[in-house]
Amino acid sequence: MIGLAVLPLEGMPEIEQDDDLAGLLHEAAERAGGLGAGDVVVVAQKVVSKAEGRIVHLKDVEAGDFARANAAGQDPRHLQVILDESTRIVRMRPPFVIAETAHGFVCGSAGVDASNTPGDGTLVLLPVDPDASAQALRRRLSELAGVDLAVIVSDSFGRPWRHGTTDVAIGVAGFSPVRDLRGVRDRTGYELRSTRIAVADEIACAAELVMGKTEGIPAAIVRGLRLGGEGTARELVMPPERDLFR
Amino acid sequence: MIGLAVLPLEGMPEIEQDDDLAGLLHEAAERAGGLGAGDVVVVAQKVVSKAEGRIVHLKDVEAGDFARANAAGQDPRHLQVILDESTRIVRMRPPFVIAETAHGFVCGSAGVDASNTPGDGTLVLLPVDPDASAQALRRRLSELAGVDLAVIVSDSFGRPWRHGTTDVAIGVAGFSPVRDLRGVRDRTGYELRSTRIAVADEIACAAELVMGKTEGIPAAIVRGLRLGGEGTARELVMPPERDLFR
Repeated sequence: MIGLAVLPLEGMPEIEQDDDLAGLLHEAAERAGGLGAGDVVVVAQKVVSKAEGRIVHLKDVEAGDFARANAAGQDPRHLQVILDESTRIVRMRPPFVIAETAHGFVCGSAGVDASNTPGDGTLVLLPVDPDASAQALRRRLSELAGVDLAVIVSDSFGRPWRHGTTDVAIGVAGFSPVRDLRGVRDRTGYELRSTRIAVADEIACAAELVMGKTEGIPAAIVRGLRLGGEGTARELVMPPERDLFR
Repeated sequence: MIGLAVLPLEGMPEIEQDDDLAGLLHEAAERAGGLGAGDVVVVAQKVVSKAEGRIVHLKDVEAGDFARANAAGQDPRHLQVILDESTRIVRMRPPFVIAETAHGFVCGSAGVDASNTPGDGTLVLLPVDPDASAQALRRRLSELAGVDLAVIVSDSFGRPWRHGTTDVAIGVAGFSPVRDLRGVRDRTGYELRSTRIAVADEIACAAELVMGKTEGIPAAIVRGLRLGGEGTARELVMPPERDLFR
């Protein structure tokens, strides 16, 4: 194996609703030398959401009693938006909320973000169906580049027990997000019984290292992987009854 | 930015106790074109533990009552070793255990591993002090290569809510493992209030993508990062009282 390259897609404009995100990604990739067969294009959720118009203006939001009671000095409409995006509150220390989303993801603020938004008083929500977003980007980018690509829509999630966020795949298209080594033997002949690797999340992490939240680099190419199969990021969601860590 | 390269260190022998791991890593790196200033060398915990003799032979273990009561058909001595490595049982579904280790890490089987061990009836434990392991490797590798390097000792951890393992840094030397963007402003001028990125874990993930548990590639170089500061993997452990996700 000759290893991986992780290339930032630089020089993209601020993304607005109905922008041709695939076209802009393709132009940026052309400036970085072009896309190759098997490349994984990792795109930050923020720009996908913006292109899809997943923006809420606080002036259009009315906070309910629960949001007003738990806003802890922050704008209660912000908490209301988070609650509206939540199917379950996992932990709460007002005004901070860890929530489960309709996709099954567990993350801070149900994925609602106030940074890198289109302006004061606006919040960005997760895409309605990030796997569909990834699939649409994959189809159009593969068409533009004339090669078969994979796409990840990524976001930065916190986690228990450890400091800091790491990026995860919330949308996947063109490969199987979990590499299953069950039944495979290691070099000593030992069967790797329970080894399943969340490669999609690891690829999202590799991409984050060149993306940068402050420099306006919303996407990266990860090149050199040998991925296979098909799958969605929904497969990365662990069913509660099988989740020993929960 | 020109991006990152992630290069596997191939052709290393099986590591045994008291092997010169830094020397073997350096030889493998020479075959891969050599080490450069600022490179991060990511080394799988398994080979660090083996070189440090962190091996337990089951024949030397006597299972206590608790291990025998909870072995669920497995060898109770295996569970006893896990208990001996644990400071706290976080979850238990016999024979599976999620435990906190003396380092403060929360992981499956307290990091005790039965795959890629030196032989039947042996288990590999986490290093006693993985930060010290990383620091020693860093010192020796930097000396051999004649350039200033960073080192991560990595392991594959499961996590709540999501399928599959991702790699994390359990030992760090030569950089600050958390990039702190608090107080930094995004492109729209919004202050990124609570954005701390666990770059060490993301680098470990990038490296895992080329390492492979079945191909016997126990290390990788991650090249092209601009890291700074100093720190240890202990800083990645979230104090319980600040852990909203716990």
